[in-house]
Order: sequence, then C-alpha cells, then structure tokens
Amino acid sequence: MTEALQVPTHLTVENADFSKALGFIDGAVVPLAEAKISVRDLGLMYADMTYDVVHTWKGGFFRLEDHLDRFFASMQGLRLDAGMDRAAMRAVLMDLVRRSGLPDTLVYFACTRGLAVPGSRDPTLSRNNFFATVTPLVLRGQPEEMARGKDAMLVRDIRRIPGSAVNPVWKNSHWGDFIRATFAAKDAGFDTPILLATDGLVAEAPGFNIVAVIDGGLVSPDSGVLEGISCRTMFEIAAELGIPARYGALTPEALLGAEEAFLTATSCGLFPVTRIDGTPIGAGVPGPITTRLLNTYYRKKNAGWHITPVTATDED
Amino acid sequence: MTEALQVPTHLTVENADFSKALGFIDGAVVPLAEAKISVRDLGLMYADMTYDVVHTWKGGFFRLEDHLDRFFASMQGLRLDAGMDRAAMRAVLMDLVRRSGLPDTLVYFACTRGLAVPGSRDPTLSRNNFFATVTPLVLRGQPEEMARGKDAMLVRDIRRIPGSAVNPVWKNSHWGDFIRATFAAKDAGFDTPILLATDGLVAEAPGFNIVAVIDGGLVSPDSGVLEGISCRTMFEIAAELGIPARYGALTPEALLGAEEAFLTATSCGLFPVTRIDGTPIGAGVPGPITTRLLNTYYRKKNAGWHITPVTATDED
Repeated sequence: MTEALQVPTHLTVENADFSKALGFIDGAVVPLAEAKISVRDLGLMYADMTYDVVHTWKGGFFRLEDHLDRFFASMQGLRLDAGMDRAAMRAVLMDLVRRSGLPDTLVYFACTRGLAVPGSRDPTLSRNNFFATVTPLVLRGQPEEMARGKDAMLVRDIRRIPGSAVNPVWKNSHWGDFIRATFAAKDAGFDTPILLATDGLVAEAPGFNIVAVIDGGLVSPDSGVLEGISCRTMFEIAAELGIPARYGALTPEALLGAEEAFLTATSCGLFPVTRIDGTPIGAGVPGPITTRLLNTYYRKKNAGWHITPVTATDED
Repeated sequence: MTEALQVPTHLTVENADFSKALGFIDGAVVPLAEAKISVRDLGLMYADMTYDVVHTWKGGFFRLEDHLDRFFASMQGLRLDAGMDRAAMRAVLMDLVRRSGLPDTLVYFACTRGLAVPGSRDPTLSRNNFFATVTPLVLRGQPEEMARGKDAMLVRDIRRIPGSAVNPVWKNSHWGDFIRATFAAKDAGFDTPILLATDGLVAEAPGFNIVAVIDGGLVSPDSGVLEGISCRTMFEIAAELGIPARYGALTPEALLGAEEAFLTATSCGLFPVTRIDGTPIGAGVPGPITTRLLNTYYRKKNAGWHITPVTATDED
C-alpha cells in the first residue's frame, strides 16, 4: 500500500504575518519595508554579490551551519568580505529571527560588493555590504499542489549559464536564463522550466536541484549546478531508508524515462514532478520514493534533526 | 606625421562635484545617497533587470534616442515595463540632468522586476520599478592613461556568458564572468581582462566592446556581445574618414596580430589597448587610426554631433 503525502497545511500565504518581516542592514534591524540598499551598490548594478537562504522550523534553524559553510565559501570564491566572522553572522541571523517572533521563516542573507570608489572600476576598493531579511515561511507546494505535482517543461533553447562563465557552486544571483525559461514555460502552459546545460545534459530548475529516480535509486546532476543543501538532505534521508543515491550525468532521455522525479529547494524540501513536456513521469503522480522522502523529511525535522534552536544573544 | 591624442583634461575625480548627483526613484528626484531600492527587489535578488548608460556633454545628451531605443528593446525582450512611455522617460532623464546643474554627466537608468507577490514565483505579477541616477562624468582614461593605453589580459579560463543562456543584446547586469576575469587580470598585473566566447572567439571586455585594426580597417565581434553604441559611433566616424569597418569573427590570434586595438564605452568613447598578454599591439602605443577616431569623436561632439540639448520640461 502506498504511503500518502503528508504536507503541513498551515504555512499558507493567508496565514503568513508579513507585518513581522524584518531586515538587518547597515548594522541595524528594521521593518522589512525599510530594508533598502543604494541603487549604486554593485550587487544591483552588476549582480556582484552572493546570497543564501536558510529556513527556520518551529523556532529552530535547519542546517544553519551548512548554509553558513556555503555562504563563506561563496564569499571566498567571489572575493567578498561581510566584515564579520561566522559567530557574529550567526548571532545576527539568530537575533533577526528571534525579534520577528516567527517560528517558521525564510532567512535570506547576502553580501554585495558595495559602492564603487568614484572614478574607479577596481572591485577590491569597495567596502562590501552584508544584509539579511526574515520573512514568514510560505510553503511552495501546498498539499493539493504537492499531490498534483509539477508539470515541467524541458526547455531546449535557453541553456543554463555554464560554469566556465559563472561558477554555480558560489551561490549567485545570475538568473537571466532561469527567468527567460520561466516565461517560456509559463507561456506554454507549464508550471516550471527545467534547464539543460550547454552540453545538453539536465542541469537545474530555477532555485531547484532536480533528482530522478532510476532503477530504484536517486540520480542528481553532478556538475554545472549549485550544490543544493536540500538535495543533500534528501540523499541523507535516502541513505537511512536504504535507497541508493548518487550524483552523476543525467540525460533528458533518462529523466523523461525515470520512475519518479522531484525538485529540491529550501522552501519546500522537495516538490514532485509528475509530468515533463506533457509526458507522465512514472504513473503521473508523486511516486512512492518521493513520498517516503518527503514524509520522512517532515518527521525528522519535527523531531529536531539538523535543527539549531534560535537562542537569545548576549546583548539581551 | 602622427596626430597626437587630444583628450579633455578637466573631467577628473578631483573636479567632479558628487554632491550634485541625484537619483529618480519612486517617481521623485532625491539626492543620490537617498536613492535606494528594497533589498527584496528581484532586480537585486535575481539580476532580473535591464539598464542603460547615456552621457551628457556640455549640457546635451549624446545619442539619447539610440540609448532609449536599446533600453526599450531590452525591456521588451526581458518583459519589463517601466510604466511610462518614451516621451515620459525622456522627460524624466532631461529633468534629472537639468536639476543636477552638471553639464557633463553619466545618466544610468534601469528597470527592475520589482517585488515578488508574496508566496508566488510568477514574474508576470510584479510591478516593475524604473529608476535613474545622474553623476558627474569622470573620464575613464585621463590623458596620461590614454597615451599609455591599456595592458590587457586575454583571459582563457573564464568565458563570457553565452547568448544561449543570457541574451547579450538585452543589456543586463550579469557581470559575474567580467568580475571574476577582472580579479584574474588585476592579480596578474594587467589593467583589464578581455574575454573569449564559449567558442573561443574574442568577445568583450567588462563594459567595453573591442575593436581591432586589421589591414587598415576596423573589426569588432559580431555575435555574443552587446551592440555597443560607442562602437557604432566609432564605425560612423570611420566611415566619414574613409576607414573600412565591419562586424565579424575575431580570433585571439588576429587580435594579437592586429595593427591597433581599442575598447569602446560610453564613459570614454574609446580607450587604446597597447599591449595584450604583454605583447605590444602594433608599435605598443595608441595607433594613428585609434588617435584619429578619438580626436574626431571629440571634435564632432563639441560641434553638437548627435547631441540633444537638455531642455526645460513642461512642469517648469
């Protein structure tokens, strides 16, 4: 008998109290609407920045240290300096969530190049700018959407930006390909695009890693993509459940012929893909492995797995 | 006898009055330091925006209509809507420059996607955001720098983002490749990088088109690059001077063996490249064609060529 998908029902737009959203910018905590950045910041002008998104669940951060690892690696790769060490950044994020009073949140944090020195194009001269926001967690994938799954379009003529140009491992805001592909998919009546790499292999969807279930095991692309933390989470859960999982090349044909497929992201854990280019994947409904992974994900998070409670800071 | 480069000497950082810089944002003109945008604007979060930069010269816009043409084409391609027609935008830019009181300026203007609708990833639901800034024109390339020329590095391992991912004709803020290459060039002691396309042909430098002088004529890459207005300006001047000019494929070998080379941009017209990877281009000094083009550029601008005077608006 197939297990039913069990997705939380309370994390809706209607239930979300956006009035509690906050920003941390220029060293101060402000209401989100007041969190603003100069239009001359090179993070805006030239996408010269990195960011990460972590979520809190019932008052605790999920995999905070993994997100901090990636953020500091991205900053090092892109030669950005937030002007604070890891302990200070952790305290800023903790404080921001605590002040919001929200238990379930998305915490976006970013480091931009900052302002150019007048008359110079030397990026080493800029004072980099760290900021963060906390907003209520709204589940992408409400229960009925999850049960239906995504109707994805394998976009052929817009390719993912290759790593030879922009290193995808350093989390970046270069989404021009994703956005163009999103318009193409929506125009054609699909929920989301899936992009191919320049070499024709399957790459990513906008903000999502993609995972196929082939021969009873998980396969996710191994190059040219962000090293997704939610994807890693699903791989860890798969290991516990005795389901094989590996990173490797994924052809469009292999994806279309997969037994199941899903997308992974912080804001939903995973999202089933039930049709690609109109073709049902497996039975055209969220498959048994997809369902077990997602249900286990919620059971484990509810039991405190990878959770770091939001604590009061020294300043209180 | 070779003509000497004649570059204006007064447009220095020291002479620039940055206190007169202004921004237009949310429908109002404000001091530049107050021109800020929400950190939740998708233009910042996902580089979902377009921009353009036009300059004013002695109180008149240079090629304003060409920049507006490109900006409106970029908006159409990227499905952005500034919420005003071309006449209204022209009036906003005119008014901004007039209020600054600055004769020689750079006018940056942009349209971003704006804020996401809470809980949605549908980019069609956002209200797009138009803003502009005016800052004093500081010549990139003061006379002594122009006379020395740029010592460029042909970067081999970081390639320009291909058009299959992000259409370079729609002017965009995806500069991750440029910035990474800029660091690589500066680390190695060069002034600027020149990037190759994925196919190995010469593409662009950060914010510059590249032009080689080969067999007495100009050659500039014909694909995978922004359709630069300053490059077009130099081609028009070349036509007047009886110098052949064409867009076409440019190999690294052809560039390294060129008689002369220069970069084109709004902020300087052109900038001579005198060495690439340490090898002198031609005689290793700004060549006669480069010099004639730049001197003619200034003579023609000073005589009002392509200039639209900044006029008072109806509101005055």
